[in-house]
Amino acid sequence: MTIQQKLDAIAAKNNSLVSIGLDSDISKIPLHLQQNPDAQFLFNKAIINATHDLVCAYKPNSAFYEGAGAKGIEQLKRTCDYIQHTYPDIPIIIDAKRADIGNTNVGYADYVFTYLGADAVTLQPFLGGEALKPFLDRKDKGVIILCRTSNPGAHEFQDLLIEQKPLYQIVAERVANSWNKNDNCMLVVGATYPEELKIVRTIARDMTFLVPGIGAQGGNVEQTMKAGMNSKKSGLIMNAGRSIIFASNGEDFDQKAREVAIALRDEINSFRI
Amino acid sequence: MTIQQKLDAIAAKNNSLVSIGLDSDISKIPLHLQQNPDAQFLFNKAIINATHDLVCAYKPNSAFYEGAGAKGIEQLKRTCDYIQHTYPDIPIIIDAKRADIGNTNVGYADYVFTYLGADAVTLQPFLGGEALKPFLDRKDKGVIILCRTSNPGAHEFQDLLIEQKPLYQIVAERVANSWNKNDNCMLVVGATYPEELKIVRTIARDMTFLVPGIGAQGGNVEQTMKAGMNSKKSGLIMNAGRSIIFASNGEDFDQKAREVAIALRDEINSFRI
Repeated sequence: MTIQQKLDAIAAKNNSLVSIGLDSDISKIPLHLQQNPDAQFLFNKAIINATHDLVCAYKPNSAFYEGAGAKGIEQLKRTCDYIQHTYPDIPIIIDAKRADIGNTNVGYADYVFTYLGADAVTLQPFLGGEALKPFLDRKDKGVIILCRTSNPGAHEFQDLLIEQKPLYQIVAERVANSWNKNDNCMLVVGATYPEELKIVRTIARDMTFLVPGIGAQGGNVEQTMKAGMNSKKSGLIMNAGRSIIFASNGEDFDQKAREVAIALRDEINSFRI
Repeated sequence: MTIQQKLDAIAAKNNSLVSIGLDSDISKIPLHLQQNPDAQFLFNKAIINATHDLVCAYKPNSAFYEGAGAKGIEQLKRTCDYIQHTYPDIPIIIDAKRADIGNTNVGYADYVFTYLGADAVTLQPFLGGEALKPFLDRKDKGVIILCRTSNPGAHEFQDLLIEQKPLYQIVAERVANSWNKNDNCMLVVGATYPEELKIVRTIARDMTFLVPGIGAQGGNVEQTMKAGMNSKKSGLIMNAGRSIIFASNGEDFDQKAREVAIALRDEINSFRI
């Protein structure tokens, strides 16, 4: 099964384009869990159990685990193991934003695909497609390239004009028309830039986009859906992190996360009719 | 002490611009060590003990440790701890090529600076300087931005012309003229591109460059030195990994590494007179 088939299957089963960003910053998780040595895993497990029927993916960002070193990486591994064993039909996207030269990328591919058992990973385009071969060659895995990131300073390089065309559009063209030989590529386009999202949709046809930036970063769901959906009224993995997982910092955090996830799923679906 | 002062001090003390890339791929280290659970650390420790008087830095690439997950990260942590405790005047550069949006980069800064205790880190420019604030604000640490990478496909995006100027030159300008307010920025420029290195030197004045690509990747020392030295006949961290650390796969691996490091140090210094 390809990553796209897995994504399509769970999006249909759960009637959802919501991805939950398991960005489980230890300093922000509920106080009653913080002292537990397995705090991040126990927090994630509760969020996952409360939301598994509402999502099309979970997307942990590696940075929030690496900050604690080897112990943090173990918490991420346990989280991925838990998803794989308990809800194996839900794809795991590791937001790692990696890229190195070719032989070095093998180590990163081992980390996300072999060690963590993830289905997809986010990558930086700056070193070019040649360097990313150890990822692009993985027909069974998703390769999600940063195109237009959600941060306020994204324009600094991504809007630079190459023959009247901004760099982010060149990235979209390269990925859609040249790197995607194994039909395993996707693009990251932030919800904070709906105009750019609309243009990338025309470049990349029906390709799936990972869309961060709704929720805490302020991206608007209606604008994002109208600008970003593909011809099948789909093609978006709408990720929200903090606004869902930190909806409450009390003992009801998982149920509050469920409530926010339901509302987001329904709001997204209201534009797909 | 700033990272530049630390680099200058050790370069003078050891009369060396050689950095050794501790890219200790478990499958390539000598067979008599491979079965040991601490193989990567023991290998690194032997290399470090055999070369500490010949280098200006050690540069482990995180990918070669992450591939083994939490256990690999522990090997990297033990390596960094060993350098800090035994040879505290030698800077540690973590080649991590990270970059995320601002609040997420805090996790990566914690990983390299707090957990590993490194002096400097390599970063991707694609998200812009705003996103890299958690790194750029660290006056005590080195922030080494990818400018022209050493891989064969570096040209795909890095040579795109913005008003007749390639993207890699724009990156060099931004870093040298705008991001370097704390005087803690450096650039990565591959030895495999001496013409580009020469141009980046004119843009970035006396800034220090981390130069990968000599040794196994085929970069030429003479061309690199002539193109890259700053006005003080310095300003380069000349990194070699595989050609030094895997010079022998027998029990004499550390002494062979020392021999290759001496030859490289001397070859580099022959162009600094």
